[in-house]
Amino acid sequence: MSRVHVWGAAGYAASEAIRVLHGHPLLEVGVLESRSHAGARVGEHFPALRTAPYRFAGEGAVLAAVHSGDVVLCAGAHGEARARAEAFLQAGARVVDLSADFRFDDAVTYGLAEWNAAAIAGARLVANPGCYPTATLLALLPLARFGAPLQIVVDAKSGITGAGRTPSVGALFAEVANDVRAYGLDGHRHQPEIERGLAAFGAGAPLAFTPHVVPLARGMLVDAYAVYDRELDADAVRAAFAQSYAGSPFVRMVDDLAPSVAAVIGTNDAELRADVLGRTVRVLCAIDNLGKGAAGQAVQNVNLMLGLPEHTGLGVAERVG
Amino acid sequence: MSRVHVWGAAGYAASEAIRVLHGHPLLEVGVLESRSHAGARVGEHFPALRTAPYRFAGEGAVLAAVHSGDVVLCAGAHGEARARAEAFLQAGARVVDLSADFRFDDAVTYGLAEWNAAAIAGARLVANPGCYPTATLLALLPLARFGAPLQIVVDAKSGITGAGRTPSVGALFAEVANDVRAYGLDGHRHQPEIERGLAAFGAGAPLAFTPHVVPLARGMLVDAYAVYDRELDADAVRAAFAQSYAGSPFVRMVDDLAPSVAAVIGTNDAELRADVLGRTVRVLCAIDNLGKGAAGQAVQNVNLMLGLPEHTGLGVAERVG
Amino acid sequence: MSRVHVWGAAGYAASEAIRVLHGHPLLEVGVLESRSHAGARVGEHFPALRTAPYRFAGEGAVLAAVHSGDVVLCAGAHGEARARAEAFLQAGARVVDLSADFRFDDAVTYGLAEWNAAAIAGARLVANPGCYPTATLLALLPLARFGAPLQIVVDAKSGITGAGRTPSVGALFAEVANDVRAYGLDGHRHQPEIERGLAAFGAGAPLAFTPHVVPLARGMLVDAYAVYDRELDADAVRAAFAQSYAGSPFVRMVDDLAPSVAAVIGTNDAELRADVLGRTVRVLCAIDNLGKGAAGQAVQNVNLMLGLPEHTGLGVAERVG
Amino acid sequence: MSRVHVWGAAGYAASEAIRVLHGHPLLEVGVLESRSHAGARVGEHFPALRTAPYRFAGEGAVLAAVHSGDVVLCAGAHGEARARAEAFLQAGARVVDLSADFRFDDAVTYGLAEWNAAAIAGARLVANPGCYPTATLLALLPLARFGAPLQIVVDAKSGITGAGRTPSVGALFAEVANDVRAYGLDGHRHQPEIERGLAAFGAGAPLAFTPHVVPLARGMLVDAYAVYDRELDADAVRAAFAQSYAGSPFVRMVDDLAPSVAAVIGTNDAELRADVLGRTVRVLCAIDNLGKGAAGQAVQNVNLMLGLPEHTGLGVAERVG
Repeated sequence: MSRVHVWGAAGYAASEAIRVLHGHPLLEVGVLESRSHAGARVGEHFPALRTAPYRFAGEGAVLAAVHSGDVVLCAGAHGEARARAEAFLQAGARVVDLSADFRFDDAVTYGLAEWNAAAIAGARLVANPGCYPTATLLALLPLARFGAPLQIVVDAKSGITGAGRTPSVGALFAEVANDVRAYGLDGHRHQPEIERGLAAFGAGAPLAFTPHVVPLARGMLVDAYAVYDRELDADAVRAAFAQSYAGSPFVRMVDDLAPSVAAVIGTNDAELRADVLGRTVRVLCAIDNLGKGAAGQAVQNVNLMLGLPEHTGLGVAERVG
Repeated sequence: MSRVHVWGAAGYAASEAIRVLHGHPLLEVGVLESRSHAGARVGEHFPALRTAPYRFAGEGAVLAAVHSGDVVLCAGAHGEARARAEAFLQAGARVVDLSADFRFDDAVTYGLAEWNAAAIAGARLVANPGCYPTATLLALLPLARFGAPLQIVVDAKSGITGAGRTPSVGALFAEVANDVRAYGLDGHRHQPEIERGLAAFGAGAPLAFTPHVVPLARGMLVDAYAVYDRELDADAVRAAFAQSYAGSPFVRMVDDLAPSVAAVIGTNDAELRADVLGRTVRVLCAIDNLGKGAAGQAVQNVNLMLGLPEHTGLGVAERVG
Repeated sequence: MSRVHVWGAAGYAASEAIRVLHGHPLLEVGVLESRSHAGARVGEHFPALRTAPYRFAGEGAVLAAVHSGDVVLCAGAHGEARARAEAFLQAGARVVDLSADFRFDDAVTYGLAEWNAAAIAGARLVANPGCYPTATLLALLPLARFGAPLQIVVDAKSGITGAGRTPSVGALFAEVANDVRAYGLDGHRHQPEIERGLAAFGAGAPLAFTPHVVPLARGMLVDAYAVYDRELDADAVRAAFAQSYAGSPFVRMVDDLAPSVAAVIGTNDAELRADVLGRTVRVLCAIDNLGKGAAGQAVQNVNLMLGLPEHTGLGVAERVG
Repeated sequence: MSRVHVWGAAGYAASEAIRVLHGHPLLEVGVLESRSHAGARVGEHFPALRTAPYRFAGEGAVLAAVHSGDVVLCAGAHGEARARAEAFLQAGARVVDLSADFRFDDAVTYGLAEWNAAAIAGARLVANPGCYPTATLLALLPLARFGAPLQIVVDAKSGITGAGRTPSVGALFAEVANDVRAYGLDGHRHQPEIERGLAAFGAGAPLAFTPHVVPLARGMLVDAYAVYDRELDADAVRAAFAQSYAGSPFVRMVDDLAPSVAAVIGTNDAELRADVLGRTVRVLCAIDNLGKGAAGQAVQNVNLMLGLPEHTGLGVAERVG
């Protein structure tokens, strides 16, 4: 029974992590540190956690409590995680960092669980991938065996929780409802992470990436289009996906349905479908940006790091079906 | 391990029942009968049940399969349930009917679980209450001890799944989004059920009931106002609620928070708050119209009928907190 | 052609005022002052004003520009308006203040246009009513002739723009979507304004007021219930409303429909319906919280103050129907 | 003052056409025929038209009323329009058909107003383009001068009114809210119309088209990606768009903003932005699927056919800015 602390515990991804950890049979919720919410009951700020028996602790509480053998999820803001993570490591803890701070650091294991499980299993520090990179890499890495496409187009639609819980005009209900808007049109922070991931796993190619906000609280659909100089064989493409994810309890191929955000909300699942449309292979991937795109994958990484079955506490047994 | 069949299995309440039953440790999902969806996988029509290993069966399938000791949830349309329920009873099954067909029948047990548990425990046929009556009665019955108020005003806000899954213009996204509308202004089917329930439990009074549709898929908030000829003692009111629900695993009083739909979605919980405002007592009650207002309470009734702990499979142990 | 300046021009009510003023045939948009948005194009921040040929000006710009004969709409934060309004008045301008700063000041005209037009016509400073008070008073004042009820219950449902455009956690999309929540359960700023308004127009009575946020960007539905010691005559009630609003271009009684938020969005209209339910009279009133509940009524007040027909520029001629 | 009748007047596009026609200074609303709604007030079924002084007429009413010189908008179901349109033409009317019935007929003028104005001006029968084709062709036709790309990828996000007002499970609020789903993954009716349009205007190329439903009542964003064998010059691309739409009152290029659905709702506008991303040109186009994508363009076509300025009654003068 390892303890898992959460640093930066008052954000959306953190709240989802608390929910998952609370139901995890082999992990125990430790200290939930939040500067801004110190002292408050968790259920007061997050209705979905209304009955959770936890309170937020103040600054420094995780560091004061952490022991060797513990795990810390760093769910605080980009830029603040690096120093904290290092202190937690020195205290003997394992760390999964949900910020972007370590994702470009060659010395740190990239926590794309379906593609990097062996490295994660031995790691003490894991950089949890971003939500867009997770969905995009799950969609495109099985195609690596077919060689580099001429061009990759990634058109992503995300719920607004991806923007975090720190209030901003752009995340207000009145701005998000009744609108669909692209953003980052002059360049988005996730593009280099996707490019790095594609290259690292042998699938590098020119990339045009466009993220959009749609009127959803949570959930993400990525449409990835790989344009080749020839038409790929549809059966070979299908086989590539089947083989890539044969052992994964979380990745589900659907052939006669459309991958749907509603099918993955609240889970660590990814729902994919690949089609050959002439010289373009279109792959749709639906995830919960707070689940597989953040907290779910973080717990999956904790499981791997601790030598537990990777699906423990992530609803595969309990889930419907 | 009793089997629970569902007749009329392709509606929203039925899908929620299937979800709950699937995770129930002491009940087994039996035949899921749907004329319109016969043969289809459940997960094809309900994304949240994507991985459920069930298919819909055709007309007559429940009756052909039902054995003594089984339970049948009748989740079909109002008016069609009576004949079916009687056939299932004759085949030796227990029946919980979610339609309005038996709610006014004195010979049938009214399944308001928190207030009628003893009768439900011995019943072979239970009329599951409507969603508005459930929330309203939970809000008002604890006040019965104070005598009849001069007037009761019930202002209810419901998600649109209360209207069912049979397509109608009024339930289209484009009609429900960006609107709040009262309905049944000339009289609503649930008003007599509420009046009957108030009277049956000693809390009858003149009632003005107004239901509204708000842009929610699921969830319901009822604001019940009881206007007295005097000011009630706030401590006594609070004590009445505390005593009424002391033994209930599902009813939660909140004093310093607002009852919130988001806090009860996907659960069989009810969240209540009572305030004395001069000569008016205001009680807010939030439930999931598909949970406590339909499928959750139906499973709670099945538990009671079978002599199981009433919370089995209803998330009290597993739930956050 | 009078000029109308807007002080505090970057909020939701201000943006609606700019939209209305831009199309007003007898008013001219003057200086749009916003500390936070100085220099930016209006259309950059408000998509619905994309093509508006205006920029925000910086602090002090209105005061520097204002002339005798101009009008200033004060749409800034509560607490800051008083000092500004006085400066604008001294510069010779008429002022309509949309904050709460003057609403309790006996020396200032209360801008409830349908009920106070004569006073408004001669005023140099008008306190524009809050959105909840506007809808509630329109619903209840016609009942004054029947004497005081025993109790008034007001259950109000509002879109989130009523909370303003300054970012807060409670106004984020992820908090407002999929929830309905009451607030101000321990007392709400608008309750005294409603009580004052009821008393001022001869309709005072004990009031239980409960505001709710529903998942709407804009729009408001108020259900007002007046509980009497006797049953009022339905025809007399209907006649009272008909007489009260016979001359109003903006108030519309509906008898066979439910007043609907969707029917008033983007307008200065109010849609009402009154029913006698035993000893309770129920009046529903739908308005746009940014229209009749803020900017629309503000422009109506400007029209009255300047001696223009009160509907000028408010869509009565142009509107559908 | 020409009369415009609407056949099939009870759908979403028809209701938007009625709204626009009602405010049109040079057109008069004629007979509004709807089999299903005959006799009802328009405002009873469409809250946004609450005050419109019209009723629906029964079957055959348009044909009985139509005179030479009139115009008929055919807004009924695909498949039923052809026979009706021919009868209206024989009666001497001009016809704009909003269904798909004539879009593939070489003898009928394709009503893509910005690109086919001369032909429309002389036409008696115009096939109004679909919403997806309109947005896609506006995005891609300016690129024709650069030669054929290797591949075109079109990723479209639409509000649900595009599915019409005939009730279906997939258009229910509870199915559309909280989901984003692609559809037509095995082929969509609009793909051949887009291909035909691209070819007709010299911009043919292999096309991968994927439509999605997002939780919006109305509005559409199309992301069109043209993949070339070389990098196009960004200034030349910008110039191509500037020249293509220099004379259009409705098409607006934005360079430093993201085209936004919220900026075009309720208008006949299209908001575009083009970027060169390596060898891919990305063009975003936002329209109102009921405006420029249906009723707005239909009225624009009526204006052109009658020799009126094309923007008459379409809000260019009245609109904000």
